[in-house]
Amino acid sequence: MIRKVLLCCRGEIAMRFIRTCRHLGIETIAAYPIDDVGAPYVTAANLSVPIQARTPSEAIPEVIAIARLTGADAIAPGYGPLAENAEFAELCVTEGFVFVGPNANAIRLSGDKIQARMAAEQAGASVIPGAMMPTDTNSCVSIARQIGFPVIVKAVLGGGGRGIRVAHTENEFISALQEVRREAHNAFGSDQAYVERFLGEQVRHIEVQVVADQHGRVVHLGDRECSVQRRRQKLVEEAPAPNLVDHIRQNLYLQATNLAKAIGYDSAGTVEFLVDPCGSFYFIEMNARIQVEHPVTESVCGVDIVEQMIRSACGQPLALDQDSIHFVGHAIEFRVCAEDPLENFLPAAGVASSYVVPEGPGIRIDSGITCGTVQSPRFDSLCTKIVVHGRDRSQALFRATDALREFRVTGFPTNVPFHRWLLRHPDFVCGTYNLGLMAEFIVTPAEKSAIRTELAIVAAISAFLREGIQPHAESTHKNMGASLWRLRNEPRSYVESF
Amino acid sequence: MIRKVLLCCRGEIAMRFIRTCRHLGIETIAAYPIDDVGAPYVTAANLSVPIQARTPSEAIPEVIAIARLTGADAIAPGYGPLAENAEFAELCVTEGFVFVGPNANAIRLSGDKIQARMAAEQAGASVIPGAMMPTDTNSCVSIARQIGFPVIVKAVLGGGGRGIRVAHTENEFISALQEVRREAHNAFGSDQAYVERFLGEQVRHIEVQVVADQHGRVVHLGDRECSVQRRRQKLVEEAPAPNLVDHIRQNLYLQATNLAKAIGYDSAGTVEFLVDPCGSFYFIEMNARIQVEHPVTESVCGVDIVEQMIRSACGQPLALDQDSIHFVGHAIEFRVCAEDPLENFLPAAGVASSYVVPEGPGIRIDSGITCGTVQSPRFDSLCTKIVVHGRDRSQALFRATDALREFRVTGFPTNVPFHRWLLRHPDFVCGTYNLGLMAEFIVTPAEKSAIRTELAIVAAISAFLREGIQPHAESTHKNMGASLWRLRNEPRSYVESF
Repeated sequence: MIRKVLLCCRGEIAMRFIRTCRHLGIETIAAYPIDDVGAPYVTAANLSVPIQARTPSEAIPEVIAIARLTGADAIAPGYGPLAENAEFAELCVTEGFVFVGPNANAIRLSGDKIQARMAAEQAGASVIPGAMMPTDTNSCVSIARQIGFPVIVKAVLGGGGRGIRVAHTENEFISALQEVRREAHNAFGSDQAYVERFLGEQVRHIEVQVVADQHGRVVHLGDRECSVQRRRQKLVEEAPAPNLVDHIRQNLYLQATNLAKAIGYDSAGTVEFLVDPCGSFYFIEMNARIQVEHPVTESVCGVDIVEQMIRSACGQPLALDQDSIHFVGHAIEFRVCAEDPLENFLPAAGVASSYVVPEGPGIRIDSGITCGTVQSPRFDSLCTKIVVHGRDRSQALFRATDALREFRVTGFPTNVPFHRWLLRHPDFVCGTYNLGLMAEFIVTPAEKSAIRTELAIVAAISAFLREGIQPHAESTHKNMGASLWRLRNEPRSYVESF
Repeated sequence: MIRKVLLCCRGEIAMRFIRTCRHLGIETIAAYPIDDVGAPYVTAANLSVPIQARTPSEAIPEVIAIARLTGADAIAPGYGPLAENAEFAELCVTEGFVFVGPNANAIRLSGDKIQARMAAEQAGASVIPGAMMPTDTNSCVSIARQIGFPVIVKAVLGGGGRGIRVAHTENEFISALQEVRREAHNAFGSDQAYVERFLGEQVRHIEVQVVADQHGRVVHLGDRECSVQRRRQKLVEEAPAPNLVDHIRQNLYLQATNLAKAIGYDSAGTVEFLVDPCGSFYFIEMNARIQVEHPVTESVCGVDIVEQMIRSACGQPLALDQDSIHFVGHAIEFRVCAEDPLENFLPAAGVASSYVVPEGPGIRIDSGITCGTVQSPRFDSLCTKIVVHGRDRSQALFRATDALREFRVTGFPTNVPFHRWLLRHPDFVCGTYNLGLMAEFIVTPAEKSAIRTELAIVAAISAFLREGIQPHAESTHKNMGASLWRLRNEPRSYVESF
């Protein structure tokens, strides 16, 4: 077993690793970008070391040096920028560290859209018609024409919503290809692009969580519905996927575990599929890392996925039997991001001057921030994950409505108003939504102005409650004695009216 | 179904009711003592009305008047001072309100130690040798002598650790009887006392949660170990009771449900037993209300107990089958109280100037306070319930250690250092403790002074982190650049050294 792990990730996922490491008696070292000084994970780790690098590739030698200097015997990238980087995983091992993630070969295979596609086909999965793009643009156009428009252009090494464009015409396609190549070159160091038929927005994104060891054993931990996406970035995920017929579900499980076995996968990973309205489904990609949305799976099956990753990385055989994994209830995750949903989700920055998270039965919180944390524009906008669990989807929805009402951060806007809108959308409530749902989120100028006013009132009340209630509040009590009671739910009405 | 419920309870249990009421679409009215202005439940309720009364009996007419004025159709006392008051329950019904709790008759039977004891005997439960005390002291002494010392003197209408004394000799007994009578007269309006044989401290307090409807159906939701008690007040509870042989567990379930059926019980209730080292067990009492420790049961069986109480109060038949109730994993609750464990748990008061609750997988928080709340010395010292759930007791213990490390409140001392001590005690860790455990908690002056110093350092660091990190922290970063890293775990070391 490892004794000391260097975390080269930040925010809530660093906290997530710290928690499981404490349970396992493993010390943690947070290698943190200097902007994060004072962030909860930096204070919570046993040791915290600032890194100077401004890009992931610059950070690699620094991370290795820190790991050596601090006596770490393992390195964990979480879902940070160094996850799914086969060279980095390889380097960690070469330098004598345990890499908490899959083996470099599996990362390489999953990360390469072409090879992953071939492996998936061999494992019996359907794939969407598509092809690699040659360098010559004319040949690219003719291949795209053969596949049939609309098409989707993807960076071969892309992920997380980056390096991806939809094109409905040849002209759109040419500029999309250029953009994807430029973005991919900058972000992933390779401009290789891949084109496949675009299935439209009326499909569902459903994924299967797998966990494997280094000895060829693979189990699945069920599925997740991830069809609430903005610019291919997930916002809300649930487990299990609602209204999915059982034979499709079982087929997805089978294909996912077969694929993981076929590519010699170890650690935790996710196999993503698109499911069309007719029930046909297509493999899209495999993510060779822990995912943001793993808590919904943990909530329904009770397995600590980070613990499984650590055990697998240490070479321990999987202690989970497929038959011993049972699913209880329904879980939904809401990603709270520092973004303004009223301004097209423009990323926001600021200092969390107050911070209140929901509580009570069935509520799990994974925060990256706390009161006083600086939300930097340099990084991912994810602040907090609110995960609700209920005996069924209906109870989970009720708890979600309540939890989003209780959540409060001041200092910057968040996408919580979007989540509240979502919880009132009939398709979401009924669990009959697909990737097209997001297009319906349109805010009129009148609504915008009303919400802004209400938010200002709420902020003013929060500030008053924070500053105004002091130990010598006796005089305030007396002044209030005249009015027998105060109506309390008015300042919250924007929640309902939005 | 009810539409609007008046809550005559406060703190975390009022919040607990508000959450379930929101899910069920029921409006809430908080009748709050004026000291609680600004408390989370007062802000969270749909409507909040201050009450002037300073004692529970004074409050009754006021509560009824507020319920009428605000159009409430139900009244819920939680585990507040008006719970287990049969007259109040009766009055609510007479005045046309649904009482969210058991029927007055069941409250009266459970609350009367003699009648409850008789009912338990009829339901097949063993009871501890004991008798009612007549008014004449000489007769009392001779009865006590017959029972055999040591004996325990209890107020017939007592509960919650009040109105209870142990006596080892006749002299001790005479003064204990006087004290109990005085205390009972003031607190419960009756000085009737009851004496039974004191089984010593090497016994376990184990209780069974039952839920019943108005149509004679009763189910149990498993057991709870509640042997961590200070002055007969529970501090830590777990579900299920560790190291309990199955035939005892099944017997406790059977006796608890039989007793509930025998006395025509409805709503949620708890049947308490003492289990001695030989495995003999004795009924002690039935609590006719929701208990502080109900979340450990909710965590292992997934049933919302407050929802069951509301449904039962509305006359709905129980929608739970005993066979459909399954227990998953292990849960432990830690009551965080505003008390100084280094000064014999002296109640503390103050304003929560900062407040951070633990998060992550398997953590449930039920707070009565938030940042800025006044912790008044007038009320119960309970601030927050930290409930951990794990796949087994061992994982729950790890999560508990971590959660108690993450919890932070400044402004007044809490009993968290006691919980940390508990989590390092071999008997607690092994689950082989009993009511005698608490006697081992002794703090030497040297330990006290060391902990005080460490706590002062932590408070200073918290204040710095709260005040010091501002958006223009660039200069701080530069100053820190010189030291490559900072050791982080030192300020926390008091956690380990205690």
